[in-house]
Amino acid sequence: MRTSQLLEQLMEALRCLPGVGPKSAQRMAFSLLQRNRQGGLQLADALQKAMTEIGHCRDCRTFTEEEVCSICSNPRRQENGQICVVESPADILAVEATGQFSGRYFVLMGHLSPLDGIGPSDIGLDVLEFRMQTETISEVILATNPTVEGEATAHYIAELCGEYQVEASRIAHGVPVGGELELVDGTTLSHSLAGRHKLI
Amino acid sequence: MRTSQLLEQLMEALRCLPGVGPKSAQRMAFSLLQRNRQGGLQLADALQKAMTEIGHCRDCRTFTEEEVCSICSNPRRQENGQICVVESPADILAVEATGQFSGRYFVLMGHLSPLDGIGPSDIGLDVLEFRMQTETISEVILATNPTVEGEATAHYIAELCGEYQVEASRIAHGVPVGGELELVDGTTLSHSLAGRHKLI
Repeated sequence: MRTSQLLEQLMEALRCLPGVGPKSAQRMAFSLLQRNRQGGLQLADALQKAMTEIGHCRDCRTFTEEEVCSICSNPRRQENGQICVVESPADILAVEATGQFSGRYFVLMGHLSPLDGIGPSDIGLDVLEFRMQTETISEVILATNPTVEGEATAHYIAELCGEYQVEASRIAHGVPVGGELELVDGTTLSHSLAGRHKLI
Repeated sequence: MRTSQLLEQLMEALRCLPGVGPKSAQRMAFSLLQRNRQGGLQLADALQKAMTEIGHCRDCRTFTEEEVCSICSNPRRQENGQICVVESPADILAVEATGQFSGRYFVLMGHLSPLDGIGPSDIGLDVLEFRMQTETISEVILATNPTVEGEATAHYIAELCGEYQVEASRIAHGVPVGGELELVDGTTLSHSLAGRHKLI
């Protein structure tokens, strides 16, 4: 027998978060009620605003509440004409964290998947094509996930780039830095061997 | 460089949940934005309502939006006059899940801790004392946590019960069911031996 309907509703609602089951939801609800009601109210407010106001950038399709995101509207990032194509907005954060890329992005919000009915226009390739026609793009760096679908998507976009005489490149596959060779899977090691470069 | 201020605020706000660090917060925010905005809005609503409307039951101090919670106001649960004293509202759910207890509860919302300045009235013992004076209570079952503070709190309440000629009992300590004896710690095993009961 539960003592509060609102508490039950809160526990149920918390389960929409990824990785949160009944036990975690219970722990979260009690923790907020007992120790941090102010934080709970702030979270409610942030959720409300984010869910209703955040849309997609007109140019790169990442999440933003502006028409054009802060990266696309930054003139310094347009200088070298590079566009990095990624599958999700979270990938932008990962690439930005390296500090090695100063161009702009294009977010597919998924990958090509003909079996699920996801075609080129569903992942915004019409927008990318329009940008290749209208902007001066020096290189498209394909940073889709190293999965079968990610590879297929990268190849499709590379051919698209060919039609507009835009250089296309794919990020390198190989042995991750800091690991042990014997723990690396065979496919990765094959890629790593095939992609070897001369030292001397 | 982040692309959306609202997204950053959401990630920051999500970290008020226990066990949620920067990476989980990012995953949660993206998951809601990409796949479940409706769920996010429902969560915002549930949080808002729960944080502002949920208070404490007048009789047992558990979380409820009513003046008296559904357990305390249920006449069937008053019949046997038993009151189970627990440290937190989550403990009520745990005891209720056993289906072995049909009395009412009293929630301390903590335990006695003189070093932190938490005295009897901070854990609502004045309310419990008032109930012992005014209600017909047959037994107080002390189900505080099996910690030093929990034990001390249980002993303090037991003495309080003595003053009002109310029977006080403590839940049994011993070997958990389903475990292996060699993995049980020494203190638990000592309790288990001391609390042995005759079979024949």
